[in-house]
Amino acid sequence: MMDPASTTHPTTRRHFLAGAAAATTLLASAGCADAMKHASKGTPCPMIEPGSVILLQGDSITDSGRDRKRQDNANDARAMGRGYALLAAAQLLAEQRDTELKIYNRGNSGNKVFQLADRWDKDCLALKPDVVSILIGVNDIWHKLGGRYDGTVEIYERDYRALLERTRRELPEVKLIVCEPFVLRCGAVNDTWFPEFDSYRTAAKNVAKAFNAVFVPFQTVFDKAIQDTPPAHWAADGVHPTMAGAQLMAQAWLAAVSNA
Amino acid sequence: MMDPASTTHPTTRRHFLAGAAAATTLLASAGCADAMKHASKGTPCPMIEPGSVILLQGDSITDSGRDRKRQDNANDARAMGRGYALLAAAQLLAEQRDTELKIYNRGNSGNKVFQLADRWDKDCLALKPDVVSILIGVNDIWHKLGGRYDGTVEIYERDYRALLERTRRELPEVKLIVCEPFVLRCGAVNDTWFPEFDSYRTAAKNVAKAFNAVFVPFQTVFDKAIQDTPPAHWAADGVHPTMAGAQLMAQAWLAAVSNA
Repeated sequence: MMDPASTTHPTTRRHFLAGAAAATTLLASAGCADAMKHASKGTPCPMIEPGSVILLQGDSITDSGRDRKRQDNANDARAMGRGYALLAAAQLLAEQRDTELKIYNRGNSGNKVFQLADRWDKDCLALKPDVVSILIGVNDIWHKLGGRYDGTVEIYERDYRALLERTRRELPEVKLIVCEPFVLRCGAVNDTWFPEFDSYRTAAKNVAKAFNAVFVPFQTVFDKAIQDTPPAHWAADGVHPTMAGAQLMAQAWLAAVSNA
Repeated sequence: MMDPASTTHPTTRRHFLAGAAAATTLLASAGCADAMKHASKGTPCPMIEPGSVILLQGDSITDSGRDRKRQDNANDARAMGRGYALLAAAQLLAEQRDTELKIYNRGNSGNKVFQLADRWDKDCLALKPDVVSILIGVNDIWHKLGGRYDGTVEIYERDYRALLERTRRELPEVKLIVCEPFVLRCGAVNDTWFPEFDSYRTAAKNVAKAFNAVFVPFQTVFDKAIQDTPPAHWAADGVHPTMAGAQLMAQAWLAAVSNA
Protein backbone atom coordinates (compact mmCIF):
# COMPACT_ATOMS: atom_id res chain seq x y z
CA MET A 1 0.00 0.00 0.00
CA MET A 2 2.67 2.46 1.04
CA ASP A 3 6.11 3.03 -0.25
CA PRO A 4 7.80 4.90 2.55
CA ALA A 5 11.35 5.94 1.83
CA SER A 6 13.51 4.10 4.32
CA THR A 7 16.82 5.50 3.14
CA THR A 8 18.05 9.00 2.66
CA HIS A 9 18.93 10.32 -0.77
CA PRO A 10 22.11 12.30 -0.41
CA THR A 11 22.23 13.26 -4.07
CA THR A 12 18.81 14.88 -4.06
CA ARG A 13 19.05 18.60 -4.54
CA ARG A 14 17.90 20.77 -1.69
CA HIS A 15 17.41 24.40 -2.40
CA PHE A 16 14.28 25.17 -0.48
CA LEU A 17 15.41 28.51 0.82
CA ALA A 18 17.11 29.43 -2.41
CA GLY A 19 13.80 28.78 -4.17
CA ALA A 20 11.83 30.89 -1.73
CA ALA A 21 14.29 33.72 -2.01
CA ALA A 22 14.25 33.58 -5.81
CA ALA A 23 10.45 33.67 -5.91
CA THR A 24 10.33 36.74 -3.76
CA THR A 25 13.10 38.47 -5.60
CA LEU A 26 10.97 37.94 -8.68
CA LEU A 27 8.00 39.49 -6.93
CA ALA A 28 9.87 42.39 -5.45
CA SER A 29 12.53 43.24 -8.01
CA ALA A 30 10.44 45.25 -10.43
CA GLY A 31 7.08 45.04 -8.75
CA CYS A 32 4.18 47.40 -8.32
CA ALA A 33 6.11 49.61 -5.95
CA ASP A 34 8.48 50.48 -8.79
CA ALA A 35 5.84 50.58 -11.46
CA MET A 36 3.73 53.00 -9.46
CA LYS A 37 6.55 55.53 -9.58
CA HIS A 38 6.22 55.43 -13.34
CA ALA A 39 2.44 55.82 -13.35
CA SER A 40 2.82 58.97 -15.43
CA LYS A 41 4.14 56.79 -18.24
CA GLY A 42 0.79 55.06 -18.37
CA THR A 43 1.96 51.86 -16.72
CA PRO A 44 -1.27 49.99 -15.87
CA CYS A 45 -0.29 49.40 -12.28
CA PRO A 46 -1.47 48.49 -9.77
CA MET A 47 -3.02 45.92 -12.06
CA ILE A 48 -5.16 44.62 -9.27
CA GLU A 49 -6.79 47.65 -7.74
CA PRO A 50 -8.73 47.40 -4.50
CA GLY A 51 -12.10 45.75 -5.00
CA SER A 52 -11.16 44.21 -8.35
CA VAL A 53 -13.12 41.33 -9.84
CA ILE A 54 -10.59 38.84 -11.19
CA LEU A 55 -11.54 36.03 -13.56
CA LEU A 56 -9.31 33.05 -14.33
CA GLN A 57 -10.24 31.34 -17.57
CA GLY A 58 -8.91 28.39 -19.49
CA ASP A 59 -8.93 24.62 -19.84
CA SER A 60 -8.32 21.74 -17.41
CA ILE A 61 -5.12 23.32 -16.10
CA THR A 62 -7.18 26.22 -14.77
CA ASP A 63 -10.24 24.07 -13.96
CA SER A 64 -8.28 21.57 -11.80
CA GLY A 65 -11.39 19.93 -10.37
CA ARG A 66 -13.28 23.10 -9.41
CA ASP A 67 -16.80 22.67 -8.03
CA ARG A 68 -19.10 24.17 -10.69
CA LYS A 69 -22.06 24.31 -8.30
CA ARG A 70 -20.15 26.94 -6.31
CA GLN A 71 -18.73 28.89 -9.21
CA ASP A 72 -20.80 32.01 -8.45
CA ASN A 73 -19.16 32.34 -5.03
CA ALA A 74 -16.13 34.61 -5.10
CA ASN A 75 -13.02 33.47 -3.19
CA ASP A 76 -14.45 30.01 -2.53
CA ALA A 77 -11.73 27.37 -2.26
CA ARG A 78 -13.99 24.62 -3.63
CA ALA A 79 -14.86 26.75 -6.64
CA MET A 80 -11.19 27.45 -7.29
CA GLY A 81 -10.00 23.90 -8.05
CA ARG A 82 -6.70 22.52 -6.80
CA GLY A 83 -4.31 24.06 -9.29
CA TYR A 84 -2.50 27.32 -9.93
CA ALA A 85 -5.77 29.26 -9.70
CA LEU A 86 -6.26 28.22 -6.08
CA LEU A 87 -2.61 28.73 -5.18
CA ALA A 88 -2.44 32.19 -6.77
CA ALA A 89 -5.81 33.26 -5.34
CA ALA A 90 -4.89 32.16 -1.82
CA GLN A 91 -1.63 34.07 -1.94
CA LEU A 92 -3.25 37.17 -3.44
CA LEU A 93 -6.01 37.22 -0.80
CA ALA A 94 -3.53 36.65 2.03
CA GLU A 95 -1.05 39.26 0.89
CA GLN A 96 -3.29 41.90 -0.66
CA ARG A 97 -5.60 41.69 2.39
CA ASP A 98 -8.36 43.31 0.39
CA THR A 99 -11.69 42.10 1.71
CA GLU A 100 -13.43 43.42 -1.42
CA LEU A 101 -11.34 41.50 -3.93
CA LYS A 102 -13.40 38.90 -5.80
CA ILE A 103 -11.72 35.99 -7.57
CA TYR A 104 -13.52 33.49 -9.82
CA ASN A 105 -12.33 30.41 -11.70
CA ARG A 106 -14.26 29.42 -14.83
CA GLY A 107 -11.75 27.13 -16.53
CA ASN A 108 -13.35 24.11 -18.25
CA SER A 109 -11.48 20.87 -18.88
CA GLY A 110 -10.93 20.08 -22.55
CA ASN A 111 -11.56 23.60 -23.80
CA LYS A 112 -9.99 25.01 -26.93
CA VAL A 113 -10.13 28.72 -27.74
CA PHE A 114 -13.36 28.49 -29.76
CA GLN A 115 -15.05 26.83 -26.77
CA LEU A 116 -14.12 29.78 -24.58
CA ALA A 117 -15.85 31.98 -27.17
CA ASP A 118 -18.97 29.78 -27.05
CA ARG A 119 -19.45 30.41 -23.33
CA TRP A 120 -17.91 33.89 -23.05
CA ASP A 121 -21.15 35.78 -22.41
CA LYS A 122 -22.04 33.86 -19.26
CA ASP A 123 -18.57 32.80 -18.17
CA CYS A 124 -16.79 36.11 -18.65
CA LEU A 125 -18.80 39.17 -19.67
CA ALA A 126 -21.64 38.56 -17.17
CA LEU A 127 -19.13 38.70 -14.33
CA LYS A 128 -18.02 42.20 -15.41
CA PRO A 129 -14.43 41.41 -14.47
CA ASP A 130 -11.79 44.08 -14.01
CA VAL A 131 -9.04 41.57 -14.75
CA VAL A 132 -9.29 38.55 -17.07
CA SER A 133 -6.53 35.95 -17.17
CA ILE A 134 -6.61 33.30 -19.92
CA LEU A 135 -4.60 30.11 -20.35
CA ILE A 136 -5.66 28.29 -23.52
CA GLY A 137 -3.98 26.44 -26.34
CA VAL A 138 -2.71 23.03 -25.31
CA ASN A 139 -5.94 21.28 -26.36
CA ASP A 140 -5.96 23.20 -29.67
CA ILE A 141 -2.87 21.22 -30.66
CA TRP A 142 -3.32 18.09 -28.48
CA HIS A 143 -6.78 17.24 -29.81
CA LYS A 144 -5.51 17.85 -33.34
CA LEU A 145 -2.56 15.50 -32.84
CA GLY A 146 -5.07 12.97 -31.51
CA GLY A 147 -7.25 13.32 -34.58
CA ARG A 148 -10.21 14.78 -32.64
CA TYR A 149 -9.95 18.33 -34.01
CA ASP A 150 -8.94 19.88 -37.30
CA GLY A 151 -7.82 23.33 -36.10
CA THR A 152 -4.55 25.03 -37.00
CA VAL A 153 -2.37 27.60 -35.28
CA GLU A 154 -3.82 30.22 -37.64
CA ILE A 155 -7.33 29.37 -36.44
CA TYR A 156 -6.11 29.46 -32.83
CA GLU A 157 -4.59 32.93 -33.22
CA ARG A 158 -7.56 34.26 -35.21
CA ASP A 159 -10.08 33.00 -32.64
CA TYR A 160 -7.96 34.25 -29.74
CA ARG A 161 -7.77 37.75 -31.27
CA ALA A 162 -11.52 37.77 -31.91
CA LEU A 163 -12.15 36.75 -28.29
CA LEU A 164 -10.03 39.57 -26.90
CA GLU A 165 -11.50 42.12 -29.34
CA ARG A 166 -14.96 41.15 -28.15
CA THR A 167 -13.82 41.36 -24.52
CA ARG A 168 -12.34 44.84 -24.98
CA ARG A 169 -15.45 46.00 -26.82
CA GLU A 170 -17.78 44.85 -24.05
CA LEU A 171 -15.45 45.74 -21.17
CA PRO A 172 -13.38 48.72 -22.33
CA GLU A 173 -11.51 49.07 -19.03
CA VAL A 174 -10.65 45.39 -18.62
CA LYS A 175 -7.05 44.41 -17.91
CA LEU A 176 -5.95 41.32 -19.79
CA ILE A 177 -3.50 38.59 -18.86
CA VAL A 178 -2.50 36.10 -21.57
CA CYS A 179 -0.73 33.01 -20.25
CA GLU A 180 1.75 31.10 -22.38
CA PRO A 181 0.67 27.55 -23.26
CA PHE A 182 3.30 25.08 -22.08
CA VAL A 183 4.21 21.42 -22.07
CA LEU A 184 6.84 19.30 -20.38
CA ARG A 185 8.58 16.64 -22.46
CA CYS A 186 7.25 13.56 -20.68
CA GLY A 187 4.06 11.54 -20.41
CA ALA A 188 1.78 12.28 -23.38
CA VAL A 189 4.18 14.83 -24.86
CA ASN A 190 6.66 13.44 -27.39
CA ASP A 191 8.55 14.68 -30.45
CA THR A 192 5.41 14.74 -32.61
CA TRP A 193 4.38 17.92 -30.75
CA PHE A 194 7.37 19.88 -32.07
CA PRO A 195 8.09 22.27 -33.62
CA GLU A 196 4.34 22.86 -34.08
CA PHE A 197 3.71 23.44 -30.36
CA ASP A 198 6.16 26.33 -30.34
CA SER A 199 4.06 28.11 -32.97
CA TYR A 200 1.10 28.10 -30.55
CA ARG A 201 3.30 29.71 -27.90
CA THR A 202 4.38 32.35 -30.42
CA ALA A 203 0.76 32.95 -31.39
CA ALA A 204 -0.21 33.50 -27.74
CA LYS A 205 2.69 35.93 -27.32
CA ASN A 206 1.64 37.81 -30.47
CA VAL A 207 -1.90 38.07 -29.14
CA ALA A 208 -0.64 39.38 -25.80
CA LYS A 209 1.43 42.03 -27.55
CA ALA A 210 -1.39 43.08 -29.87
CA PHE A 211 -3.75 43.65 -26.94
CA ASN A 212 -1.20 45.10 -24.54
CA ALA A 213 -1.91 42.20 -22.21
CA VAL A 214 0.37 41.02 -19.44
CA PHE A 215 2.13 37.86 -20.68
CA VAL A 216 2.91 35.06 -18.22
CA PRO A 217 5.85 33.04 -19.61
CA PHE A 218 4.96 29.62 -18.22
CA GLN A 219 7.09 27.70 -20.76
CA THR A 220 10.15 29.75 -19.82
CA VAL A 221 9.51 29.00 -16.15
CA PHE A 222 9.25 25.25 -16.76
CA ASP A 223 12.22 25.20 -19.15
CA LYS A 224 14.27 26.67 -16.33
CA ALA A 225 12.83 24.29 -13.73
CA ILE A 226 13.77 21.16 -15.70
CA GLN A 227 17.41 22.21 -15.71
CA ASP A 228 17.73 20.64 -12.26
CA THR A 229 14.55 18.61 -11.72
CA PRO A 230 12.94 16.07 -14.09
CA PRO A 231 9.89 17.13 -16.15
CA ALA A 232 7.57 14.64 -14.43
CA HIS A 233 8.10 16.44 -11.10
CA TRP A 234 6.28 19.40 -12.67
CA ALA A 235 3.70 17.62 -14.85
CA ALA A 236 3.52 13.82 -14.77
CA ASP A 237 1.69 13.55 -18.11
CA GLY A 238 3.52 16.49 -19.65
CA VAL A 239 0.36 18.62 -19.75
CA HIS A 240 -1.32 18.74 -16.33
CA PRO A 241 0.84 20.21 -13.57
CA THR A 242 1.55 18.39 -10.34
CA MET A 243 1.21 20.35 -7.11
CA ALA A 244 4.81 21.45 -7.58
CA GLY A 245 4.12 22.58 -11.15
CA ALA A 246 0.99 24.44 -10.09
CA GLN A 247 3.00 26.24 -7.43
CA LEU A 248 5.59 27.38 -9.99
CA MET A 249 2.75 28.64 -12.18
CA ALA A 250 1.14 30.55 -9.32
CA GLN A 251 4.45 32.23 -8.51
CA ALA A 252 5.02 33.15 -12.16
CA TRP A 253 1.47 34.48 -12.49
CA LEU A 254 1.80 36.61 -9.36
CA ALA A 255 5.21 37.88 -10.45
CA ALA A 256 3.83 38.91 -13.87
CA VAL A 257 0.87 40.64 -12.26
CA SER A 258 3.11 42.45 -9.79
CA ASN A 259 5.38 43.60 -12.58
CA ALA A 260 2.53 44.96 -14.68
CA MET B 1 -26.11 36.24 -9.35
CA MET B 2 -22.92 38.27 -9.28
CA ASP B 3 -21.89 41.13 -7.14
CA PRO B 4 -19.08 42.73 -9.10
CA ALA B 5 -17.48 45.65 -7.37
CA SER B 6 -18.17 48.66 -9.53
CA THR B 7 -16.34 51.17 -7.39
CA THR B 8 -12.83 51.30 -6.12
CA HIS B 9 -12.08 51.21 -2.41
CA PRO B 10 -9.38 53.75 -1.75
CA THR B 11 -9.21 52.95 1.95
CA THR B 12 -8.47 49.29 1.41
CA ARG B 13 -5.01 48.38 2.53
CA ARG B 14 -2.60 47.18 -0.10
CA HIS B 15 0.57 45.57 1.10
CA PHE B 16 0.97 42.73 -1.31
CA LEU B 17 4.69 43.11 -1.77
CA ALA B 18 5.27 43.93 1.87
CA GLY B 19 3.50 40.69 2.75
CA ALA B 20 5.55 38.65 0.31
CA ALA B 21 8.76 40.16 1.57
CA ALA B 22 7.81 39.53 5.19
CA ALA B 23 6.98 35.89 4.51
CA THR B 24 10.33 35.30 2.90
CA THR B 25 12.23 37.14 5.56
CA LEU B 26 10.55 34.75 7.97
CA LEU B 27 11.66 31.79 5.89
CA ALA B 28 15.19 32.99 5.36
CA SER B 29 16.07 34.85 8.56
CA ALA B 30 16.88 31.88 10.78
CA GLY B 31 16.25 29.07 8.39
CA CYS B 32 17.84 25.72 7.73
CA ALA B 33 20.93 27.32 6.24
CA ASP B 34 21.73 28.80 9.64
CA ALA B 35 20.59 25.80 11.62
CA MET B 36 22.77 23.48 9.57
CA LYS B 37 25.83 25.39 10.73
CA HIS B 38 24.85 24.43 14.25
CA ALA B 39 24.25 20.77 13.48
CA SER B 40 26.92 19.84 16.01
CA LYS B 41 24.67 21.27 18.73
CA GLY B 42 22.13 18.63 17.87
CA THR B 43 19.71 20.95 16.09
CA PRO B 44 17.30 18.60 14.30
CA CYS B 45 17.76 20.30 10.96
CA PRO B 46 17.24 19.88 8.11
CA MET B 47 13.91 18.76 9.51
CA ILE B 48 12.82 17.58 6.12
CA GLU B 49 15.64 15.48 4.80
CA PRO B 50 15.70 14.27 1.21
CA GLY B 51 13.24 11.44 0.67
CA SER B 52 11.26 12.17 3.83
CA VAL B 53 7.74 10.85 4.33
CA ILE B 54 5.67 13.70 5.75
CA LEU B 55 2.26 13.15 7.34
CA LEU B 56 -0.20 15.95 8.07
CA GLN B 57 -2.78 14.96 10.66
CA GLY B 58 -5.69 16.70 12.29
CA ASP B 59 -9.35 17.62 11.98
CA SER B 60 -11.39 19.41 9.30
CA ILE B 61 -8.87 22.23 9.01
CA THR B 62 -6.30 19.73 7.79
CA ASP B 63 -8.85 17.55 5.94
CA SER B 64 -10.28 20.45 3.88
CA GLY B 65 -12.23 18.20 1.53
CA ARG B 66 -9.46 15.71 0.74
CA ASP B 67 -10.36 12.73 -1.45
CA ARG B 68 -10.06 9.69 0.85
CA LYS B 69 -10.07 7.27 -2.08
CA ARG B 70 -6.71 8.69 -3.11
CA GLN B 71 -5.17 9.01 0.34
CA ASP B 72 -2.54 6.33 -0.34
CA ASN B 73 -1.08 8.39 -3.19
CA ALA B 74 1.75 10.64 -2.06
CA ASN B 75 1.82 14.22 -3.38
CA ASP B 76 -1.63 13.91 -4.94
CA ALA B 77 -3.45 17.26 -5.05
CA ARG B 78 -6.88 15.63 -4.71
CA ALA B 79 -5.73 13.70 -1.65
CA MET B 80 -4.37 16.88 -0.11
CA GLY B 81 -7.63 18.84 0.29
CA ARG B 82 -7.89 22.56 -0.39
CA GLY B 83 -6.45 23.98 2.79
CA TYR B 84 -3.09 24.70 4.38
CA ALA B 85 -1.96 21.11 3.75
CA LEU B 86 -2.24 21.56 -0.02
CA LEU B 87 -0.71 25.04 0.02
CA ALA B 88 2.24 23.98 2.18
CA ALA B 89 2.80 20.75 0.25
CA ALA B 90 2.76 22.52 -3.13
CA GLN B 91 5.30 25.07 -1.95
CA LEU B 92 7.51 22.43 -0.34
CA LEU B 93 7.52 20.26 -3.47
CA ALA B 94 8.19 23.25 -5.73
CA GLU B 95 10.97 24.69 -3.63
CA GLN B 96 12.61 21.58 -2.21
CA ARG B 97 12.55 19.98 -5.68
CA ASP B 98 13.00 16.58 -4.10
CA THR B 99 11.39 13.97 -6.32
CA GLU B 100 11.55 11.43 -3.48
CA LEU B 101 9.64 13.49 -0.93
CA LYS B 102 6.28 11.93 -0.03
CA ILE B 103 3.53 14.01 1.53
CA TYR B 104 0.24 12.60 2.88
CA ASN B 105 -2.83 14.24 4.41
CA ARG B 106 -4.90 12.15 6.81
CA GLY B 107 -6.87 14.85 8.60
CA ASN B 108 -10.48 13.86 9.37
CA SER B 109 -13.26 16.39 9.85
CA GLY B 110 -14.72 16.50 13.35
CA ASN B 111 -11.81 14.73 15.02
CA LYS B 112 -10.81 15.31 18.60
CA VAL B 113 -7.53 14.03 20.00
CA PHE B 114 -8.94 10.67 21.17
CA GLN B 115 -10.21 10.04 17.64
CA LEU B 116 -6.71 10.50 16.26
CA ALA B 117 -5.61 7.83 18.74
CA ASP B 118 -8.39 5.49 17.55
CA ARG B 119 -7.06 5.51 13.98
CA TRP B 120 -3.36 6.07 14.66
CA ASP B 121 -2.18 2.58 13.66
CA LYS B 122 -3.49 2.81 10.10
CA ASP B 123 -3.45 6.58 9.63
CA CYS B 124 -0.01 7.28 11.07
CA LEU B 125 2.20 4.37 12.14
CA ALA B 126 1.52 2.27 9.00
CA LEU B 127 2.88 5.10 6.85
CA LYS B 128 6.19 5.02 8.75
CA PRO B 129 6.49 8.79 8.50
CA ASP B 130 9.74 10.64 9.11
CA VAL B 131 7.82 13.81 10.00
CA VAL B 132 4.38 13.98 11.64
CA SER B 133 2.53 17.30 11.91
CA ILE B 134 -0.61 17.46 14.07
CA LEU B 135 -3.26 20.16 14.38
CA ILE B 136 -5.93 19.10 16.88
CA GLY B 137 -7.94 20.72 19.64
CA VAL B 138 -10.64 23.02 18.34
CA ASN B 139 -13.28 20.24 18.33
CA ASP B 140 -12.22 19.13 21.81
CA ILE B 141 -13.61 22.43 23.10
CA TRP B 142 -16.19 23.21 20.39
CA HIS B 143 -18.08 19.94 20.75
CA LYS B 144 -18.01 20.37 24.53
CA LEU B 145 -19.45 23.89 24.29
CA GLY B 146 -22.12 22.44 22.01
CA GLY B 147 -23.01 19.73 24.54
CA ARG B 148 -21.84 16.87 22.26
CA TYR B 149 -18.73 15.93 24.24
CA ASP B 150 -17.76 15.90 27.89
CA GLY B 151 -13.98 16.23 27.59
CA THR B 152 -11.81 18.71 29.49
CA VAL B 153 -8.50 20.38 28.78
CA GLU B 154 -6.87 17.88 31.16
CA ILE B 155 -8.21 15.00 29.08
CA TYR B 156 -7.02 16.75 25.89
CA GLU B 157 -3.50 17.17 27.19
CA ARG B 158 -3.35 13.67 28.69
CA ASP B 159 -4.56 12.06 25.44
CA TYR B 160 -2.23 14.23 23.36
CA ARG B 161 0.79 13.20 25.45
CA ALA B 162 -0.20 9.54 25.24
CA LEU B 163 -0.50 9.82 21.47
CA LEU B 164 2.97 11.31 21.10
CA GLU B 165 4.50 8.82 23.54
CA ARG B 166 3.06 6.00 21.47
CA THR B 167 4.33 7.65 18.28
CA ARG B 168 7.87 8.03 19.66
CA ARG B 169 7.83 4.46 20.93
CA GLU B 170 6.82 3.04 17.54
CA LEU B 171 8.85 5.51 15.45
CA PRO B 172 11.90 6.46 17.55
CA GLU B 173 13.39 8.72 14.85
CA VAL B 174 10.20 10.58 14.02
CA LYS B 175 10.26 14.38 13.95
CA LEU B 176 7.16 15.94 15.47
CA ILE B 177 5.35 19.16 14.66
CA VAL B 178 2.62 20.31 17.05
CA CYS B 179 0.40 23.06 15.66
CA GLU B 180 -1.33 25.55 17.91
CA PRO B 181 -5.15 25.34 17.91
CA PHE B 182 -6.60 28.71 16.94
CA VAL B 183 -9.86 30.56 16.51
CA LEU B 184 -10.88 33.92 15.10
CA ARG B 185 -13.46 35.92 17.04
CA CYS B 186 -16.28 35.81 14.49
CA GLY B 187 -18.87 33.38 13.17
CA ALA B 188 -19.36 30.52 15.63
CA VAL B 189 -16.73 31.84 18.03
CA ASN B 190 -18.04 34.11 20.79
CA ASP B 191 -17.12 35.05 24.36
CA THR B 192 -18.29 31.68 25.73
CA TRP B 193 -15.09 30.16 24.27
CA PHE B 194 -12.85 32.23 26.53
CA PRO B 195 -10.75 32.01 28.57
CA GLU B 196 -11.16 28.21 28.30
CA PHE B 197 -9.93 28.10 24.70
CA ASP B 198 -6.62 29.65 25.73
CA SER B 199 -6.01 26.71 28.09
CA TYR B 200 -6.15 24.33 25.10
CA ARG B 201 -3.52 26.43 23.32
CA THR B 202 -1.35 26.31 26.44
CA ALA B 203 -1.82 22.55 26.65
CA ALA B 204 -0.70 22.12 23.03
CA LYS B 205 2.35 24.27 23.71
CA ASN B 206 3.18 22.21 26.81
CA VAL B 207 2.92 19.03 24.79
CA ALA B 208 5.18 20.45 22.09
CA LYS B 209 7.78 21.38 24.69
CA ALA B 210 7.61 18.03 26.48
CA PHE B 211 8.26 16.16 23.24
CA ASN B 212 10.76 18.59 21.75
CA ALA B 213 8.39 19.11 18.85
CA VAL B 214 8.41 22.06 16.49
CA PHE B 215 5.54 24.36 17.54
CA VAL B 216 3.64 26.29 14.88
CA PRO B 217 2.08 29.38 16.52
CA PHE B 218 -1.05 29.71 14.39
CA GLN B 219 -2.95 31.79 16.96
CA THR B 220 -0.09 34.30 17.11
CA VAL B 221 -0.12 34.54 13.32
CA PHE B 222 -3.86 35.20 13.20
CA ASP B 223 -3.76 37.62 16.13
CA LYS B 224 -1.26 39.65 14.14
CA ALA B 225 -3.27 39.38 10.91
CA ILE B 226 -6.45 40.79 12.49
CA GLN B 227 -4.63 43.94 13.48
CA ASP B 228 -5.26 45.26 9.97
CA THR B 229 -7.80 42.90 8.39
CA PRO B 230 -11.11 41.65 9.87
CA PRO B 231 -11.27 38.12 11.35
CA ALA B 232 -13.78 36.89 8.74
CA HIS B 233 -11.20 37.47 5.98
CA TRP B 234 -9.18 34.69 7.59
CA ALA B 235 -11.95 32.35 8.81
CA ALA B 236 -15.57 33.22 8.02
CA ASP B 237 -17.00 30.99 10.77
CA GLY B 238 -14.15 31.66 13.17
CA VAL B 239 -12.87 28.07 12.93
CA HIS B 240 -12.38 27.04 9.30
CA PRO B 241 -9.86 29.17 7.38
CA THR B 242 -10.70 30.90 4.14
CA MET B 243 -8.19 30.59 1.29
CA ALA B 244 -6.42 33.63 2.73
CA GLY B 245 -6.33 32.04 6.19
CA ALA B 246 -5.05 28.75 4.81
CA GLN B 247 -2.27 30.63 3.01
CA LEU B 248 -1.18 32.34 6.24
CA MET B 249 -1.14 28.93 7.93
CA ALA B 250 0.94 27.37 5.15
CA GLN B 251 3.49 30.20 5.41
CA ALA B 252 3.67 29.85 9.18
CA TRP B 253 4.03 26.07 8.94
CA LEU B 254 6.83 26.35 6.38
CA ALA B 255 8.57 29.04 8.41
CA ALA B 256 8.46 26.89 11.54
CA VAL B 257 9.78 23.87 9.64
CA SER B 258 12.55 25.93 8.08
CA ASN B 259 13.56 27.29 11.46
CA ALA B 260 13.72 23.87 13.09
